[in-house]
Amino acid sequence: MFEVIGERINTSRKAVQAAVADRDADYIIDDVKKQQDAGAHFIDVNAGARIGHEFEDMRWLINTIQPIATVPLCLDSPDPAVLEMAFQIVAKTPMINSISLEKERFDAMIPFLNGKDCKVIALCMDDSGMPSSSDDIVKRAVKLVEELNKINIKTENIYIDPLVQPISTDSKKGVMVLDAVRAIKAQFSDVHISGGLSNISYGLPQRKIINRTFVALMMAAGMDSAIIDPLDQKIMATIKTADMLLGNDNFCGRYLKGVRAGVIES
Amino acid sequence: MFEVIGERINTSRKAVQAAVADRDADYIIDDVKKQQDAGAHFIDVNAGARIGHEFEDMRWLINTIQPIATVPLCLDSPDPAVLEMAFQIVAKTPMINSISLEKERFDAMIPFLNGKDCKVIALCMDDSGMPSSSDDIVKRAVKLVEELNKINIKTENIYIDPLVQPISTDSKKGVMVLDAVRAIKAQFSDVHISGGLSNISYGLPQRKIINRTFVALMMAAGMDSAIIDPLDQKIMATIKTADMLLGNDNFCGRYLKGVRAGVIES
Repeated sequence: MFEVIGERINTSRKAVQAAVADRDADYIIDDVKKQQDAGAHFIDVNAGARIGHEFEDMRWLINTIQPIATVPLCLDSPDPAVLEMAFQIVAKTPMINSISLEKERFDAMIPFLNGKDCKVIALCMDDSGMPSSSDDIVKRAVKLVEELNKINIKTENIYIDPLVQPISTDSKKGVMVLDAVRAIKAQFSDVHISGGLSNISYGLPQRKIINRTFVALMMAAGMDSAIIDPLDQKIMATIKTADMLLGNDNFCGRYLKGVRAGVIES
Repeated sequence: MFEVIGERINTSRKAVQAAVADRDADYIIDDVKKQQDAGAHFIDVNAGARIGHEFEDMRWLINTIQPIATVPLCLDSPDPAVLEMAFQIVAKTPMINSISLEKERFDAMIPFLNGKDCKVIALCMDDSGMPSSSDDIVKRAVKLVEELNKINIKTENIYIDPLVQPISTDSKKGVMVLDAVRAIKAQFSDVHISGGLSNISYGLPQRKIINRTFVALMMAAGMDSAIIDPLDQKIMATIKTADMLLGNDNFCGRYLKGVRAGVIES
């Protein structure tokens, strides 16, 4: 079953930033409840936007969300100290967002991550920047799995983010990542593929139809998780429908439930 | 570029049957123009529903459509005599819909098809009925290519129809056909994959979202043509978007044209 990581609790979003600054717990609780009701399997929590406040903002957010969270959190920070604090106060084993192959960032994460039995989003980013080809993405994914295995992270807990790039800059950027995902899944059947998708449509009009069509193509290639807005009903309907078409919905049960709930419409 | 075969001129549709019975040329011309404007690459013409009238109805339809047709026709009949007549009066080399591995049907088509330089839809149907597995579809496709090559039909003119079956009867029916399409394209890069898609959603509610999500998945697997209603704006928008995402739309040109024309909406 495809796993949705709800992206809304992020202080780079204006309304969330205001709610965090004002310690408006009701706003945050309401938003998380909506994401859970819409089918989020994880709630991403990113407090990075208010410079100098990340540690306290993250602690407040987690303490605010925790009592009503029915799903695990996805702790979204590049700072191991923030992650360590957050890891101690969450009730359910969280997902960590994220690690990359950038040496300084990776090394800094080792003491925190080493041997932890938690899921990790691993970006195909290294010190030379974004990947430039399908092979490049695959090589970085292999390296991420190897390096994470070395610090005792199980392959089944690794969520590779192939780093989707805008198709407006190069019409082969979609194929580049789709081919890479297929190759990564062929090599590591246990690894997960996740990440954001909306970069694919950057610079183009009517972005949402691009994003939701792309998620279906990525699912066909082997993506089994994504960081999205669960309140975007159309992308959620596409995900439920594609999951059924890809054989992951016995007796079409979740699809039919979605239709009955009025969230899947022709 | 994905090729759309417009399915609307079919006497099994009530309004078309009435127009044909009344020799209402305006209705037919208007419908064909709309399909062409919406982006159909072929216009399917099926006159099979009025028993005993197919030959005359097909002749009238072609003579009616011909003057305004800007794209080739897809002659949709199992009767070689009807096809031979139609083939003689069309202006552009048509597509033939269809041949299958059913022995009587195949043998009857040989004299007509042998050596013709025209596109042919070839159904993965044989005397034992519908295919029952991915391998079964692939085997039938291989046999179709072999048998059609023997009567001098080029592989690049063959449009394999893998025969989509309802996912409501078996949740693996989608994967079955997707895997088969990938395997067929791996074996014959020149062959085309086409056919109807709407059987996938038979028996389920909100069928159109299933059909248009499935076309994107099928395109990712290698389908490059389908028999659909070009006036279904949402499936056409999905096809244009998926074609772009799969690297077949330089500089996103056709996508942007669709947005400007108001036919692609988020």
